[in-house]
Amino acid sequence: MEIRSKIWLEINGEPVFGSGRDALLQGIDKYGSINKAAKVINISYRKALSYIQIMEKRLRIKLVERKAGGKHGGGAKLTKKAKEFLKKYEALEEGINEILDKRFSEVFGNKKGFKGQRVQGFK
Amino acid sequence: MEIRSKIWLEINGEPVFGSGRDALLQGIDKYGSINKAAKVINISYRKALSYIQIMEKRLRIKLVERKAGGKHGGGAKLTKKAKEFLKKYEALEEGINEILDKRFSEVFGNKKGFKGQRVQGFK
Repeated sequence: MEIRSKIWLEINGEPVFGSGRDALLQGIDKYGSINKAAKVINISYRKALSYIQIMEKRLRIKLVERKAGGKHGGGAKLTKKAKEFLKKYEALEEGINEILDKRFSEVFGNKKGFKGQRVQGFK
Repeated sequence: MEIRSKIWLEINGEPVFGSGRDALLQGIDKYGSINKAAKVINISYRKALSYIQIMEKRLRIKLVERKAGGKHGGGAKLTKKAKEFLKKYEALEEGINEILDKRFSEVFGNKKGFKGQRVQGFK
């Protein structure tokens, strides 16, 4: 048996950042294109723009800089603040998995035992 | 800004227990009735039975004892093992919120500052 988790950030009870938006921003960073980043995570360009707008509004930070057209179409890149934010979010996620595993072991006893033989009673 | 989380348990990649099933078992414990517990969490009796069956199968533990009809209809109660399991799951959940809050503060800095003034840059 293993513990799984999902985390996200909220501001005043409204979700503002989670794994989907993380993937979108990472994609923009990787491909330099909102369109390509949207495709990779299977959302429309329109939806991606709307996510970015909402994030920027709620976080009050400019996240993405868009460049106008030209021969190969426009591009997009993350602002320095967006990169800092992503870094922190990923640090948050990383630490958490280890913490949860540890906590799970403390409460449910030896995790490996569960994994190996499926459950078989947790005393 | 605050961190939010959802946790659940899996066995061999299949979800086996989370907040919904927790609420169902707690309801059975409270009301002594699968039917009433299902209503409270807005699922059908049939669905509740199916959840219980699947949990029992995957966890390999008898969770719920059902009594046959009689004047006031049958009742249901949690087994001792189910109660032990619930206790552990709740201990797991409780600890985690505090841990996540702490972790969030470590990574994002003073949480109160975020809360008070919405975001305003996370340095």
